[in-house]
Amino acid sequence: MQIKANDSSLKSWVEVPADSDFPIQNLPFGIFKTEYLNAGAGVAIGDYVLDLTYLYENGFLDGLGLPAGVFNQHTLNGFIGLGKQKTRAVRERISELLLDDNDELRDRKAARELALIPMEEVEMLMPVHVPNYTDFYSSEEHARNVGTMFRDPDNALMPNWKHLPVGYHGRASSIVVSGTPFHRPKGQTKANDADTPSYGPCRLLDFELEMAFITCKENGLGNPVSTQEAEDYIFGFVLFNDWSARDIQKWEYVPLGPFLAKNFASHSSPWIVTMDALEAFRVKGPEQDPAVLPYLKYEGKKNFDINLEVGIQPDGSEETVVCNSSFKYMYWNVNQQLAHHTGNGCNLQVGDMYASGTISGPTPDSYGSMLELSWQGTKTIAMKDGTERKFIQDGDTVVMRGFAERDGVRVGFGEVNAKVLPAK
Amino acid sequence: MQIKANDSSLKSWVEVPADSDFPIQNLPFGIFKTEYLNAGAGVAIGDYVLDLTYLYENGFLDGLGLPAGVFNQHTLNGFIGLGKQKTRAVRERISELLLDDNDELRDRKAARELALIPMEEVEMLMPVHVPNYTDFYSSEEHARNVGTMFRDPDNALMPNWKHLPVGYHGRASSIVVSGTPFHRPKGQTKANDADTPSYGPCRLLDFELEMAFITCKENGLGNPVSTQEAEDYIFGFVLFNDWSARDIQKWEYVPLGPFLAKNFASHSSPWIVTMDALEAFRVKGPEQDPAVLPYLKYEGKKNFDINLEVGIQPDGSEETVVCNSSFKYMYWNVNQQLAHHTGNGCNLQVGDMYASGTISGPTPDSYGSMLELSWQGTKTIAMKDGTERKFIQDGDTVVMRGFAERDGVRVGFGEVNAKVLPAK
Repeated sequence: MQIKANDSSLKSWVEVPADSDFPIQNLPFGIFKTEYLNAGAGVAIGDYVLDLTYLYENGFLDGLGLPAGVFNQHTLNGFIGLGKQKTRAVRERISELLLDDNDELRDRKAARELALIPMEEVEMLMPVHVPNYTDFYSSEEHARNVGTMFRDPDNALMPNWKHLPVGYHGRASSIVVSGTPFHRPKGQTKANDADTPSYGPCRLLDFELEMAFITCKENGLGNPVSTQEAEDYIFGFVLFNDWSARDIQKWEYVPLGPFLAKNFASHSSPWIVTMDALEAFRVKGPEQDPAVLPYLKYEGKKNFDINLEVGIQPDGSEETVVCNSSFKYMYWNVNQQLAHHTGNGCNLQVGDMYASGTISGPTPDSYGSMLELSWQGTKTIAMKDGTERKFIQDGDTVVMRGFAERDGVRVGFGEVNAKVLPAK
Repeated sequence: MQIKANDSSLKSWVEVPADSDFPIQNLPFGIFKTEYLNAGAGVAIGDYVLDLTYLYENGFLDGLGLPAGVFNQHTLNGFIGLGKQKTRAVRERISELLLDDNDELRDRKAARELALIPMEEVEMLMPVHVPNYTDFYSSEEHARNVGTMFRDPDNALMPNWKHLPVGYHGRASSIVVSGTPFHRPKGQTKANDADTPSYGPCRLLDFELEMAFITCKENGLGNPVSTQEAEDYIFGFVLFNDWSARDIQKWEYVPLGPFLAKNFASHSSPWIVTMDALEAFRVKGPEQDPAVLPYLKYEGKKNFDINLEVGIQPDGSEETVVCNSSFKYMYWNVNQQLAHHTGNGCNLQVGDMYASGTISGPTPDSYGSMLELSWQGTKTIAMKDGTERKFIQDGDTVVMRGFAERDGVRVGFGEVNAKVLPAK
């Protein structure tokens, strides 16, 4: 059975609130633990987590040829590394089990209560171990805004920008799951009017609204992956906050790129929404002019219409939404990113994260960073509690949310949030 | 017993040729396999590999509190992650076992023959799994040469260069062990006189002579490591060839740094020479002027006098040494690199590789890349076979060697070599 993500007639016997990110059309994968259960794989359905270890051990996933213990793990790497044919079959079987007319689990009360765990009782962990992390720079509006601010409004984009999806390597070790608080980083900065640099707490802490895809297949060193093949390598997507220390970045980044300005923490949402679940939300990407080189050409709808928002919640106060953007604005799509990344033979590994770069839209309220929203600190953003922001303050929690919606079906990502603690 | 690395009176009952990199004063760790043995940990002594799994399983390492199976692994991560106190005790015990007056292994012929495997019978593998890879840019001569060529001879160093050890994240997945051939990468480049870029085999393939240190301890996200503490985190060093595609680099690297120009392959030497083995070869680093910020200050001798050379061996022909350099030339030392890297709370993992950046000396024959040796292709380097090089050609094998020598004791790294195959 092929799940139709936009088929609103599909219903689950699990109650799913109308505004839930996790209807039966979604079924994202994550790693959870509870007071009583070790870390293991689960699927989100409504306000519950479906325990895949329990399903496997009690025969509900028989016949799919799954290796023993594949769900009873601290990461999804083993599972997603089985390949999309197998993971798709698992998702389709879960969909079948949860459909309102299926009684296999529904009518076995004890099994049902063990398999479905209320979300408020679980702690979500990083869904994958990340062997490699790359950050692209694929939103034209973001690149133009940054180029306008720091260089030349008339030549905001670098000459290479429309010819290749610019990217750079980031730090894998400091990617943590939503909800992990962190301390404001210290670092070396140099004020414009200072003769020498100094070391101390970052003053211009910023978020970057991003999405990231996670790979599930190895190509092997030396083997490029074409835009046509790329989707075999992509398991799904998460929301991603690529925290940035703008004052550290400004001083350190020449000539080899961002380093300590980025590697103190990046946050991932806990649920990986599969590429399959996003099929119904594909849209055409922007016209690419000039034409791209043959290895970057692609056919079909490769962008995804995913609504994105960013909120800032001051400590003990109400959240203010400061940005509404969409993943559909990307100039370079994920097929092109992967084809470019492997065009030199670079090898992908299972669990790698490839982030989009800041996703800014065309209007000022759709910019995906405080750098752009406050236009380098020349404007202030009003908070509902009466305070103002140019950058992120200690005690602020930054929350990013994302969902796609069409024909009455909403497929969402939940959220990625993180609270900024004062510098140590 | 503390091993004195420069004590030339120490002799092993294992015969060690006079010019060997691996006398009893060295005892580097690596991962090897043979036709009959699965991958496992070994120590180099003369022309032999000492099988640590065999020693452990036969009681020679009893009393050291080592976990079962720690050597019977595909990587050294588990072993080095035990911490320096434990790994130092293992190395000292091995030294004791190999000393000429120790009969424990020496006089047990069967055990000796099983424990010592001739090097020509082993295949060396990557010594560690590399969770994170960072490349620094810490040789002043290299940074000056590049700045002079590409920017302004009068302002060759960027303003930040003498205030912090510039570095950037590299790709961990494509780090492979010495001896692994690879295909010339393809990529997007743009000729100076072309209107548009093209995609094809790299034309300006280059090596970079580097060394890398490998970490053995976690600091945990948010916890800076001081220059004083840094050495607790460093297990040892390898030779490192950070292959670079100069034409790809030139077009792609603005504004976020090198990416596909570097991530198609990097080669590590197979033996990790411990920091302990290098104690006798410490030298003072260069005077740092201007004075560094307090978090980068250090005391004592933190540079290492390690002779380095690079040879090019054309296909089926004789090798020509094209570069003689030394690790002692580094402006920024490893203590400073680690303190800077963690100054924002970035978390280290066991097995991480931190490469020095190209190690160039003050004279033209000590430059650590073809970019500098051929001065951007304006000069040719003569090969012994009558051919010439500006950059690396298909069929060339690039070989890097390194050793320290003092008071009649030579502690070496062996070599890192790799052959360049034609583009696919």
